[in-house]
Amino acid sequence: MTPILNYVVSKWQALSTSDHASVVSINLFVALLCACIVIGHLLEETRWMNESITALLIGMFAGIVILLVSRGKSSHLLLFSEDTFFIYLLPPIIFNAGFQVKKKQFFVNFMTIMLFGAIGTLVSCFIISLGAFQFFKKMDVGSLDIADILAIGAIFAATDSVCTLQILSQDETPLLYSLVFGEGVVNDATSVVLFNAIQSIDLSNIDARVAIHFLGSFFYLFSTSTLLGVFVGLLSAYIIRKLYFGRHSTDREVALMILMAYLSYMLAELLDLSGILTVFFCGIVMSHYTWHNVTESSRVTTKHAFATLSFISESFIFVYVGMDALDIEKWSFVSDSPGTSVAVSAMLLGLVMVGRAAFVFPLSFLSNLAKKSADEKITFREQVIIWWAGLMRGAVSIALAYHQFTRAGHTQLRGNAMMITSTVTVVLFSTMVFGLLTKPLIKCLIPHPKLTTSMLSDPATPKSFSVPLLGSAQDSELDLDNLHVSRPTSIRAFLATPTHTVHRYWRKFDDAFMRPMFGGRGFVPFVPGSPTERGGH
Amino acid sequence: MTPILNYVVSKWQALSTSDHASVVSINLFVALLCACIVIGHLLEETRWMNESITALLIGMFAGIVILLVSRGKSSHLLLFSEDTFFIYLLPPIIFNAGFQVKKKQFFVNFMTIMLFGAIGTLVSCFIISLGAFQFFKKMDVGSLDIADILAIGAIFAATDSVCTLQILSQDETPLLYSLVFGEGVVNDATSVVLFNAIQSIDLSNIDARVAIHFLGSFFYLFSTSTLLGVFVGLLSAYIIRKLYFGRHSTDREVALMILMAYLSYMLAELLDLSGILTVFFCGIVMSHYTWHNVTESSRVTTKHAFATLSFISESFIFVYVGMDALDIEKWSFVSDSPGTSVAVSAMLLGLVMVGRAAFVFPLSFLSNLAKKSADEKITFREQVIIWWAGLMRGAVSIALAYHQFTRAGHTQLRGNAMMITSTVTVVLFSTMVFGLLTKPLIKCLIPHPKLTTSMLSDPATPKSFSVPLLGSAQDSELDLDNLHVSRPTSIRAFLATPTHTVHRYWRKFDDAFMRPMFGGRGFVPFVPGSPTERGGH
Repeated sequence: MTPILNYVVSKWQALSTSDHASVVSINLFVALLCACIVIGHLLEETRWMNESITALLIGMFAGIVILLVSRGKSSHLLLFSEDTFFIYLLPPIIFNAGFQVKKKQFFVNFMTIMLFGAIGTLVSCFIISLGAFQFFKKMDVGSLDIADILAIGAIFAATDSVCTLQILSQDETPLLYSLVFGEGVVNDATSVVLFNAIQSIDLSNIDARVAIHFLGSFFYLFSTSTLLGVFVGLLSAYIIRKLYFGRHSTDREVALMILMAYLSYMLAELLDLSGILTVFFCGIVMSHYTWHNVTESSRVTTKHAFATLSFISESFIFVYVGMDALDIEKWSFVSDSPGTSVAVSAMLLGLVMVGRAAFVFPLSFLSNLAKKSADEKITFREQVIIWWAGLMRGAVSIALAYHQFTRAGHTQLRGNAMMITSTVTVVLFSTMVFGLLTKPLIKCLIPHPKLTTSMLSDPATPKSFSVPLLGSAQDSELDLDNLHVSRPTSIRAFLATPTHTVHRYWRKFDDAFMRPMFGGRGFVPFVPGSPTERGGH
Repeated sequence: MTPILNYVVSKWQALSTSDHASVVSINLFVALLCACIVIGHLLEETRWMNESITALLIGMFAGIVILLVSRGKSSHLLLFSEDTFFIYLLPPIIFNAGFQVKKKQFFVNFMTIMLFGAIGTLVSCFIISLGAFQFFKKMDVGSLDIADILAIGAIFAATDSVCTLQILSQDETPLLYSLVFGEGVVNDATSVVLFNAIQSIDLSNIDARVAIHFLGSFFYLFSTSTLLGVFVGLLSAYIIRKLYFGRHSTDREVALMILMAYLSYMLAELLDLSGILTVFFCGIVMSHYTWHNVTESSRVTTKHAFATLSFISESFIFVYVGMDALDIEKWSFVSDSPGTSVAVSAMLLGLVMVGRAAFVFPLSFLSNLAKKSADEKITFREQVIIWWAGLMRGAVSIALAYHQFTRAGHTQLRGNAMMITSTVTVVLFSTMVFGLLTKPLIKCLIPHPKLTTSMLSDPATPKSFSVPLLGSAQDSELDLDNLHVSRPTSIRAFLATPTHTVHRYWRKFDDAFMRPMFGGRGFVPFVPGSPTERGGH
C-alpha cells in the first residue's frame, strides 16, 4: 500500500491544480470507505468493536501514513469543513434516524426526551461553562473571553446523535435508544438557541426577563422547526398520493422523497431554524404516510437507500475526524506546553461527566414521579447507561469548535488552538474509550435487555426478522394496531398514563382525517394500473 | 412564487458569506428539481415532451425570474463548474447506463459501435474543424488559433450520451439505442485521445507515423480503461461473494457497490484514462456478476437507487444548463454583433449535421457488408434515425467548451466569448428542436419498432413487465439462456455471424471459469444463514 500512497501523495504535491488534488483525495476517501466496510464486516463478530471506532482508527492510520510519506508536512488531504459536514453529511444521518425510528417508543417517552434535551442540555451547559471559567482562571490557557467560555459549554453539552446511533441498538434497548437519541435530536434546537442567545443577549445582567425570552425563543424554534418538517413530509405524501407517481416510474417516487427530505433540512437552515429537528420530523412523517403511498419496490429501495446513505455519511465523518485529528498545525502550539493541554482535556472530560450526571439522575427522578406503573419507570441501572451512553462527543462538537475558534484568522491565538486540540482529544478519547466500554457495560448492567423495554404490547423486535421487507420503521405501527385492536375497552389502557390517552386521541384523529388525506398503511386504495408493481423508469 | 424568490434573492445578495449563498442556491436547485419531477410526471402523457426539455425550460424560466428580480445583474446562483459536472454528475448517469444496458444487444453490435465511436468521431471532428477553419477566416470572429479550431471539432464531434438516454427508448428501439448510446460512450475515449493529441502532437507536419501513434494511443486508452472497469467490477463481485455481506447487512452491500463503482471512475480520472468508459464497463460487470451475489432487497435497492441517482443527476444537469444559458456576462460581448453570433451558431450546427452524415451512412454501409442475414442489417430508415438522434449536443459539450475557452483569464477575449455563446446556442437549439422532433420522427419512419429490432430470440421487452423485480438489466441474460438452451445444435446459430460464435465461446468460458469464481445468475450457492433475506442494517 505504501508505494501506491507514496505515488499518490507525490503526484498530489507535484500538481498544484485544485481539481487534480480533489481527484486524489476523493480516490483516497472512497478507497478508505471501502476498507471501512470490509474491515467493519470482518470485525462484526467482535463484541467490543463498532463501526465508528473502526472508521476512526482507519482514518488515523491513513493520517499517519500520509504524515510519514509527506515527511511531517500534512496528515490530511481534505480540510475539515463545517459546510461539508452540516450541508452534506449530517442530513442523511438524521433523516434516516427519523425514518427508521420506532415511533411509538419515541412519542410515549416524548416528555422525558424533551426534559433531557431542553432542560438537561441547559444544566449541562451551565455546569461546564462555570467549571471551565473557574479552572481556566487558574491554568495558563490563553485569552478566552466570556463568549468563548459559554461556547465551550454549548459545544460540550451537546450529545452526539451520530455516536448514539452507533452505540445503542434500537432492537435490543429501545427505551434507552429513544431516550438518548431523542435527547440528541432535541438538544440540537437547544444548541441553536444557546448559540444565538450567547451572541445577542447582554450577558452582564441576566434576569428573569432574559430567562423568559430565552424560553420563548426555544419553544418558538422547537415548534417552527417541527412544523416545517411535518409540513414538508405531509406535502410529499399528498403529492405522491394524488399524482400516482408509481404509475409511471418508481425512480421518480424515490427521487422525490430524497429531494423533499433534503429540501426540508435546507429550508430550515435557510430560515435559521434547527435543520436537525426539521429533517428528523420529516423522516417520521414520511415513514408514517409517504412510505405507504409508493410502490412495493420503492418501499424496499427507500428503506435501504436511506440507510445506506446514512451509513456512508457516518463512516465518512469518522474517517474524516480520524484523519484530521493528526493535523500537525493544530498540535504545534500545544507542543510547547503538553502538560497544560492534557490538563485542559482531562478537565473538560471531567466536566462533561459531571454535567451529564447533574441532569440525568434528577430528571429521571422527576420523570419517574409522573409515571404510575412500576415497569415504565427508568431504573437506576438504566439511568447509569443513559448517563454513560450520552458522554460521547463526536463530529458535531468538532464542527462547532471549528466554527467558534477558527473564525477570521483567530487560529493563531494560543487559547483557540488549545481549545481545538482539546476538543479533538475529548472526542477521540470519549468515542474510543467510552464507545468500547458501552457494549460490555450494557451487558453487565442489563443481562436480559428484553425485560426492561417496558412496552405495553409485545416487543416489536422479533418482527424485524420475520417481516424483512417491512422492517423496523413499520414495526411500531403494527404494535399500535395490536394495541388498538386487542384492548379497546381495557380500563388499564385508559388509565395507564396521560401519554396513552393522548396517543388514543391521536390514533382517532389519524384514522379519521390524516390517513384518508395523506395515505398511510391500509389507506391507499388499489387503483388499476396505478401504484401497483411495474418495471423501472 | 415571485415574492418568495424576491426574498430569497435579496437575502442572497445581502449576505456576502459564501456558505449562506450556497444554502440559498441548494434550496433553489432542490426545489427546482422537485418541480421538474412533478411537472415531468404531469407531462408524461404528452408524446412530444421529454424530461430533458422540461428541465431545460424550468431552468431557463428560473433564470429569467432571477434575472428580473436581480435587475439584470445575474441569471444563475451557481456557476457552471466542470468539476461538479465531471466529478459528481456524470459518473452516476454513465454507471447506471452500463448497469441497465441490454448486454446482448450491446455486444452483438460491438464492432459497429466501435466503428461509429472511434472512426466516426474522427471523421466528424475532422470535417467540423476543417469547416470551422474555412468559415472563420471569412467571418469576424476574433483571435482563434489552430488548437482552438481543433478543439471546436472535438467539442462538437462528441455525441452526448445523456441526451441519447432521454431520447431513445431501450425497450422500443433496442438496436438504435445500443448503437447511438454505445457510440456516445466509446467516443468519450476518442475525445480524450483527441484532446491529448491536440496538446502534444506537432500539428505542422502530420504524417503516417503520427497517425499510427494516434491509433496506438487510442487502443491503449480504450483497453486500459475497459480493463480497469472490468477489474473493479470483478473485485466487487469477488469481495461480496467471498465475505457474505448479506449475512450482516444489506446496507453494507449496497454501500460497497456504490463506492466501488465510483472508485472505478475516479481511479480512471486519476490515471488519465477515460472515466466514462471505465465506469460503463464496471456497470456491465456489476450487473452480470455482483448483482447476483447480493440479497434480494439489495437487488431491488441497487436497481432503483442507481436509476434514481442517475435521474436526479440528469435533471440537475439540464436545469443547470438552462439556468446558465442566460448568463448575462457571456452575452455582453455578443450583443455588439448579433448577426455574427447567429451566423457562427448556424454554421456550427450545419457542420455538426454534415459531419455526422459523413460517417453514419458510409460506416453503416460497411457494417452491413459484414452482416450476412438481411434482418441484421441497418436499414436506411434506421440510419436516418441514428444520424438524427446523435445530433444533440449537451452538457458534455458545454463543459468541454468552458474547459477550452475560459481558462486563465481568456474569458474576456472576443473569440472565446463567441465560442461559449455559440456552444450554448447549439446545445439549446439541438436539444430542444431535434429532441422534440425525434419521437415523431421515429414514429413516422418506424411505425412498428418491434419488427426492426433484429434479435435472434424473443424480444426481451415484455419481460420487464412480467418480471418486475428483475427488470431490464437482467432480461438480456434470460435471453442468452433461451438462446443457449433452445438451440445448442442449430446450424443457423453457428453460421449466423462471427459475433455469435464469439458469444458462444464467451458463454462457455463464463460458465466454466468466471461464474464459479465471481458468482452470477444461478451460481450463488445457498448457504444457511447467508445471503438469504434478512432485515436491515
